[in-house]
Amino acid sequence: MYLAMNRFQVLKDRAADFEAMWLGRDSDLPNNAGFVEFRLLKGPEHEDHILYSSHTFWESEDDFRAWTKSDSFRKAHQRANTNNAAPMTLGHPQFEGFETIQQLGND
Amino acid sequence: MYLAMNRFQVLKDRAADFEAMWLGRDSDLPNNAGFVEFRLLKGPEHEDHILYSSHTFWESEDDFRAWTKSDSFRKAHQRANTNNAAPMTLGHPQFEGFETIQQLGND
Repeated sequence: MYLAMNRFQVLKDRAADFEAMWLGRDSDLPNNAGFVEFRLLKGPEHEDHILYSSHTFWESEDDFRAWTKSDSFRKAHQRANTNNAAPMTLGHPQFEGFETIQQLGND
Repeated sequence: MYLAMNRFQVLKDRAADFEAMWLGRDSDLPNNAGFVEFRLLKGPEHEDHILYSSHTFWESEDDFRAWTKSDSFRKAHQRANTNNAAPMTLGHPQFEGFETIQQLGND
């Protein structure tokens, strides 16, 4: 299992807009081959931002890479760019990819 | 759902030992109230370390906090300290707690 994670430093006064953007989108992630699960997570609050993180689990890194080359990916990111006319975040999201080494529970 | 995440900067020549420590432990996490799932994840390689991350999902932050006060927690961390006679990581793990804002799939 492969986890594609993005970390977003969201401006405090844009946190509600940031959540509304995610909750309001019409995601077709679940229609992509190898998709397992998506979570948007709200993390710790810092002086000038709140950390949010998006976690998408795929059956394999290859499934994730195939999605990044798909129409589904292009459309999702076009929409995000339109929504970001006024910045909601400090800089760009930080991407990190992870391979599962061990899993306990839920299997 | 609450995610308790730790990020570990693991020395490159200790990565095999670090994985073996996790894979070899006899975890009783699944016996704790509110436990949902645990994953050990291997992330990107940097110049002087490899990023690993442990993700434990709990039904609520309260369940996580109760576990941190339990014998189960104390025993797990005693064992980790014993195993860490020679350091495997750069500094201490970085803890971050997250609340789930949205979930798609697997529900």
